[in-house]
Amino acid sequence: MPPTVFIVSDGTGITAETFAHSILSQFDQKFRLVRVPFVDSTEKAHATIAKINEAVSLDGRRPIVFTTLVDSASNEIVRRSNALVLNMFQTFIEPLELELDIKSTHAMGRVHQNADTEEYKNRIEAINFSLAHDDGQSNRNLSDADVILVGVSRSGKTPTSLYLAMQYGVKAANYPLIPEDFERGRLPTPLLPYKEKMFGLSIDPQRLAEIRNERRPGSKYAALENCRYEINEAEAMMKREGVKWLSSTHKSIEEIATTILQEIRLERPSYY
Amino acid sequence: MPPTVFIVSDGTGITAETFAHSILSQFDQKFRLVRVPFVDSTEKAHATIAKINEAVSLDGRRPIVFTTLVDSASNEIVRRSNALVLNMFQTFIEPLELELDIKSTHAMGRVHQNADTEEYKNRIEAINFSLAHDDGQSNRNLSDADVILVGVSRSGKTPTSLYLAMQYGVKAANYPLIPEDFERGRLPTPLLPYKEKMFGLSIDPQRLAEIRNERRPGSKYAALENCRYEINEAEAMMKREGVKWLSSTHKSIEEIATTILQEIRLERPSYY
Repeated sequence: MPPTVFIVSDGTGITAETFAHSILSQFDQKFRLVRVPFVDSTEKAHATIAKINEAVSLDGRRPIVFTTLVDSASNEIVRRSNALVLNMFQTFIEPLELELDIKSTHAMGRVHQNADTEEYKNRIEAINFSLAHDDGQSNRNLSDADVILVGVSRSGKTPTSLYLAMQYGVKAANYPLIPEDFERGRLPTPLLPYKEKMFGLSIDPQRLAEIRNERRPGSKYAALENCRYEINEAEAMMKREGVKWLSSTHKSIEEIATTILQEIRLERPSYY
Repeated sequence: MPPTVFIVSDGTGITAETFAHSILSQFDQKFRLVRVPFVDSTEKAHATIAKINEAVSLDGRRPIVFTTLVDSASNEIVRRSNALVLNMFQTFIEPLELELDIKSTHAMGRVHQNADTEEYKNRIEAINFSLAHDDGQSNRNLSDADVILVGVSRSGKTPTSLYLAMQYGVKAANYPLIPEDFERGRLPTPLLPYKEKMFGLSIDPQRLAEIRNERRPGSKYAALENCRYEINEAEAMMKREGVKWLSSTHKSIEEIATTILQEIRLERPSYY
């Protein structure tokens, strides 16, 4: 029976969950996860305690609670439950208050309460841009792109573009490199003015063949030999044209996106 | 001059940044953010210190450092910098080791090192599914969808679907409700077998008119009166057909997605 882990938040709990996940992945042990979002009243805090205590009798051990509750009264309630309570907010708010010599606002749900802000609108705009410029669908407004990803079909361009847009508000277009480009031996013409904001994705031919075979089993498109040819040509072209690139083979979307931001100097100074 | 905040991580630093953002948003104060990802050697830890100490002389005050470094030697190096160092990992790893009575693995980059896992493949598959089923593009495999979002054009279906896929690996199709549906007074026929996994998005007509006017200024499509009509009809239809829905007006994608997961019982037990 794996230990139960509660994620208790007055908002979505997404931040808390992501963080808890990264900490728990340091243990060679399975955990059962229970999300308790939107705990924005003391009534809901009491209801949460009931759930926690139920887990104690089910599991025969006290659960682990990651909480980002901001409200002191609700915090006090949850703190009294029969669990290891790890309060991610309070732990860091206090040293920061001392350091900055100001009090925190203790306002609930501040993180995502930005649906009406400029930053949020930029994110939505970036998502729409990336969707409209997925897979070379449109050459319009390419000059507005922050980055243009290139690579052969199924090298990871689409999820990376969407992640860049969603996480960072980066307008990421993507454009396929296809056999016709390799025959001409040149980058697609519409991209030529934008070389400095292009970034390439490559992938191990073996892995590419596996991915393509899931889509079109037994096709020439998915054949290992063809994948080798396309990847060789694409990498040679990117080197020749001075386009930076990386191999997506063993990288997650998050790792690819972060690397691109660094390499292409999209790292504008951020302010919170 | 806002205080400088460093996000120092041996991986992408995305988790650390999201978490730092949520804590810093508790202060009515601007911060300048510097991301330092992929600090996976003591050399890079030393280079990071140099950057931190540079900020001290530029700002005339010591910066704040959020770190999720796992390696003890690198941690020790960063800890000695002239900064308020908040170590998000160490802080919680210790009480967890005591509670679980096992040692953590201290393995670097565990979070996103899962590009080859089943869970990661499911996420990519969900993204592809959501893209293929965006805006009613395809009625194929709707039976495979975990959720089908419905709503009038520009009510927030597309970003929510993509977020559900990317964050939770949920296969989210989305389908527009259009004037023809309102005239017939029925949900789109291809959706009828899937009522129990439909979820509606509505939006304040005023806000909808603003959004639509950005796309097609002065059109009938964007006119406030038309937006009012469509929203009235859509909400009436969802009530009549027993489709759960929420208003996306003041909600972020994250809040909408979390609410949908809860409402439609996509909350399968998760294990880490």
